[in-house]
Amino acid sequence: MNRLGVRNMITILRIDVSARKERSLTRELSRRFIDEWLKQRPSDKIVQRDIGLNPPPAVSEDWIAAAFTPEEERTKAEQATLQFSDTLIDEVEGADIILLGVPMYNYGMPAALKAWFDQVIRVNKTFSFDLARGDEPLEPILSGKHLVILSSRGEFGFEPGGVREHRNHLDPHIRTCAKFLGAVDDQHYRSGHFIPQVAVSCSAATVSV
Amino acid sequence: MNRLGVRNMITILRIDVSARKERSLTRELSRRFIDEWLKQRPSDKIVQRDIGLNPPPAVSEDWIAAAFTPEEERTKAEQATLQFSDTLIDEVEGADIILLGVPMYNYGMPAALKAWFDQVIRVNKTFSFDLARGDEPLEPILSGKHLVILSSRGEFGFEPGGVREHRNHLDPHIRTCAKFLGAVDDQHYRSGHFIPQVAVSCSAATVSV
Repeated sequence: MNRLGVRNMITILRIDVSARKERSLTRELSRRFIDEWLKQRPSDKIVQRDIGLNPPPAVSEDWIAAAFTPEEERTKAEQATLQFSDTLIDEVEGADIILLGVPMYNYGMPAALKAWFDQVIRVNKTFSFDLARGDEPLEPILSGKHLVILSSRGEFGFEPGGVREHRNHLDPHIRTCAKFLGAVDDQHYRSGHFIPQVAVSCSAATVSV
Repeated sequence: MNRLGVRNMITILRIDVSARKERSLTRELSRRFIDEWLKQRPSDKIVQRDIGLNPPPAVSEDWIAAAFTPEEERTKAEQATLQFSDTLIDEVEGADIILLGVPMYNYGMPAALKAWFDQVIRVNKTFSFDLARGDEPLEPILSGKHLVILSSRGEFGFEPGGVREHRNHLDPHIRTCAKFLGAVDDQHYRSGHFIPQVAVSCSAATVSV
């Protein structure tokens, strides 16, 4: 345990979703979060995954067939089809904190983020499926992760009770999918309301054990 | 006017979203819808756009910059960046009915469909932006389209009042985005509850003028 009362090394998976490299609010937020974090905990590990600049491919028919083939029966070609998905899932598995810098595009996730979730939410890797569980046959396999969402949006009023709450298809969708990342909690910070120090302190506190 | 009391020729834009070519419920639904339609109205025009097999690219920084550059000032490179978006928008503009065959993936749109919406919802093409409108600066440019959604999902209870309504990030999101397609109404049919003849009759009725 170090002076913050947390485990000796924490791994943060930083995922940037914005298609913009320049003038991106969410990239600026995630950069500042990481800078502030490393000031306080310089030995922690940061893994970067830039899906804004390199969007994952949408899942294909071959991908689906390979994912539903038992691992020990997969051909070399099927293994190759899932290789990128394996890499993305390894990154999630290895993370204590998943830091998502994500703008709202057309009231929901950018396509690149949905493609990422579709690659990561995979049977027998991040969820198990068992009809014996009745009406809730899916269960997450991962657990103990903390999700921090740094987001931006071009309009206002998307918060609970806001005038555009019914058009907010970003935050609720991320929350539904997040349980398959093993996220046990999440914190949202929007651009304009974001204080990196506070976010870092809150996030560090959630990881404390 | 013909015997159905509708305009002489109707154009249907059929969009298939499923990554699966084989064993796709939604492809089967859209195929049956079109077959039934053409039985009743053989002279109508069907335009096909297969985004399941050929997912549109996610929008890029160059795309955003080009879209926000006034048309008359765009370079050849910027025009080329928007060419695919132009094509997709032309297809929407030319349609009376937009037929969307879409499975639910991870509680929302498949990434390919979100990529399609992100290519199609474009300033000065499908929406105008004017801060003089106050709190609602965006307005759709297109109008008079009819949207028919043929969808499938792996779990149940996503309908209003159902046990998974709060995890349905597909139908509400499509509805929010649909106004930018110029859709003045929409009809949803889910696999298992779908009778092509009924859907075709209802759709034909909405187009009657």
